[in-house]
Amino acid sequence: MPDLEEEVLARIERQRKLKARFRDTHITMAHGAGGKTTHTLIEGLFAPAFANDALGELADSAKLDVNGTLLNFSTDGYVVKPLSFPGGCIGELAVNGTINDLAVSGARPLCLSTAFVIEEGLDADILRDQVAAMAAAAQKAGVPIVTGDTKVVERGKCDGMYIISSGVGVRDPRVDLSSASVKPGDHILVSGTIADHGTAIMLARGELELDADVESDTMSVWPIVESLIDACGADLRVMRDPTRGGVATVLNEIAHDANVGVVLDEEAVPVNGPVRGACEILGIDPMYVANEGKMIVVVAAESGAAALAAMQATPGGERAALIGKVQEQPEGMVLVKTAFGGTRIMDMLIGDPLPRIC
Amino acid sequence: MPDLEEEVLARIERQRKLKARFRDTHITMAHGAGGKTTHTLIEGLFAPAFANDALGELADSAKLDVNGTLLNFSTDGYVVKPLSFPGGCIGELAVNGTINDLAVSGARPLCLSTAFVIEEGLDADILRDQVAAMAAAAQKAGVPIVTGDTKVVERGKCDGMYIISSGVGVRDPRVDLSSASVKPGDHILVSGTIADHGTAIMLARGELELDADVESDTMSVWPIVESLIDACGADLRVMRDPTRGGVATVLNEIAHDANVGVVLDEEAVPVNGPVRGACEILGIDPMYVANEGKMIVVVAAESGAAALAAMQATPGGERAALIGKVQEQPEGMVLVKTAFGGTRIMDMLIGDPLPRIC
Repeated sequence: MPDLEEEVLARIERQRKLKARFRDTHITMAHGAGGKTTHTLIEGLFAPAFANDALGELADSAKLDVNGTLLNFSTDGYVVKPLSFPGGCIGELAVNGTINDLAVSGARPLCLSTAFVIEEGLDADILRDQVAAMAAAAQKAGVPIVTGDTKVVERGKCDGMYIISSGVGVRDPRVDLSSASVKPGDHILVSGTIADHGTAIMLARGELELDADVESDTMSVWPIVESLIDACGADLRVMRDPTRGGVATVLNEIAHDANVGVVLDEEAVPVNGPVRGACEILGIDPMYVANEGKMIVVVAAESGAAALAAMQATPGGERAALIGKVQEQPEGMVLVKTAFGGTRIMDMLIGDPLPRIC
Repeated sequence: MPDLEEEVLARIERQRKLKARFRDTHITMAHGAGGKTTHTLIEGLFAPAFANDALGELADSAKLDVNGTLLNFSTDGYVVKPLSFPGGCIGELAVNGTINDLAVSGARPLCLSTAFVIEEGLDADILRDQVAAMAAAAQKAGVPIVTGDTKVVERGKCDGMYIISSGVGVRDPRVDLSSASVKPGDHILVSGTIADHGTAIMLARGELELDADVESDTMSVWPIVESLIDACGADLRVMRDPTRGGVATVLNEIAHDANVGVVLDEEAVPVNGPVRGACEILGIDPMYVANEGKMIVVVAAESGAAALAAMQATPGGERAALIGKVQEQPEGMVLVKTAFGGTRIMDMLIGDPLPRIC
């Protein structure tokens, strides 16, 4: 870290180790953005209030042990705007997103629930289309929707529709994934191009004078996870799906939880051309943009090559890449080696540049 | 049925047997009210689209068999208005309501998830209070909240906050509950006074020039269910929690699903004085008003007395009562014996007299 002052690093590190406290007087969009403010809300309010072992890990899903049957349980709300966009729609996100939370926890998705909050006056064909999209996504992923609920609120009390899905998965006994298992020397991989989903949403909103051929990457990553488990087993340390807050936020979470340094090779991160161009024009770093069909994988160095090969051999993982490594220092931080040979700190997302992205 | 024309009965019955079709062009409040319109949406749109065995039963929760471990899985959205009211709040409903969906399915509630959709600008103290209420309700019921999600939408895009909770429970092997098992001769019991919750909400809205001492009945019914299973085991036919649509809708569902007649003794149904008074003034039948801590239980006649005693001996079940019986005719219908010796048909809820009740 030649270009970083030791004092700055030490200050950031002290800050990181402070216990999160939720002191805000009002809820802002940033509380739902998945970055620092969301973390403060979760660690400062929800975690202490709901304290229990399963919640303590604050992972993508909770681990359950039911009379020896190992399960994972997850929930996610979807409020994306617009409801449909190139490459996907809210219904597909609601299916694939919750499947992915289970998948990256090493759990084979078993079934889903769906709860609708619908605005009075919604065109019934919009609901029909979303239900059809959910059914198709569930069918494709082989994960049935087994129970649900519907609430309707008055005109103006929601934005068309919100969908909240929960899922139950069966944990694969060959892996025991956790950020805490990450060790210096581990390889960091991504399953494909980043920032497709968030960029597609930004463009679909039509608020930008920009037209580019960008589609959401929404899909189930379970097939890739299964390939990885087959190839690497217990050498898999942790997997995460970089949705809100993007790859930057996930890498920061891992660095923080494992108390290690993460060094990212910026040039190695795959980004589709139109996505890169749109992000450059908008002044947004693709590292912070949401994905809905990608994974970050940390694996022991000795299984790094096998992991990469397994991902690349699975549909949807063709463009998987080794993008970084874990090292001892600086603890809890992510450093980026830039294309020009420099190094900079990549922090968590702060604020919410892209509200209602999923 | 001396005072019912055979022709009318036959017509209603034919109507009942028609396959539900969802033909509406727009979503109305009635689609979320839990009555006929909701049923048409579920049976005409969701069920065919998401077709699978677990969903096919369309019960309060889905049955899962994970390598021999029998589980139930349920989800419910809460959009009650106002967020807090005498006797409870949205956070308590979100915990107890989903616990109850599992409990009436004969499953011991194991854990919950919670997903928040919060409006930008919400006073953070309102969120703190709801989180504290959820934590207290979860603690009281002994059911931890193990995972969650938070989304924030712009001002005006939700009404303060909505909470969606899901739950996993472990099915008690001593019972196999289903409407289809209901038989002529069975006893129908209620676990206590009806219509408290819905009446409390109506009064709390302050839109009515009426002041009465009415509190929501929100609570976990699992202790009562456990007592019932201990006392009656396999003699328990089916249990339901009469939330949206009230007791009338639940009894109609049972009559319809089991293809039996239900005869209800109106005088035997316990209703608190202030609730009865408020409903009379408002011209609302308490049978259609939502409950959040009550159960309807159908049990074989030979275990009727044991079931009643078990409920009355459990906290929250002191005012349990035998309120009706099952008979062969008229198939799929609910008849009410009135206090004046007459008989009338009690149909499902139509429309939505009380939107945003839970």
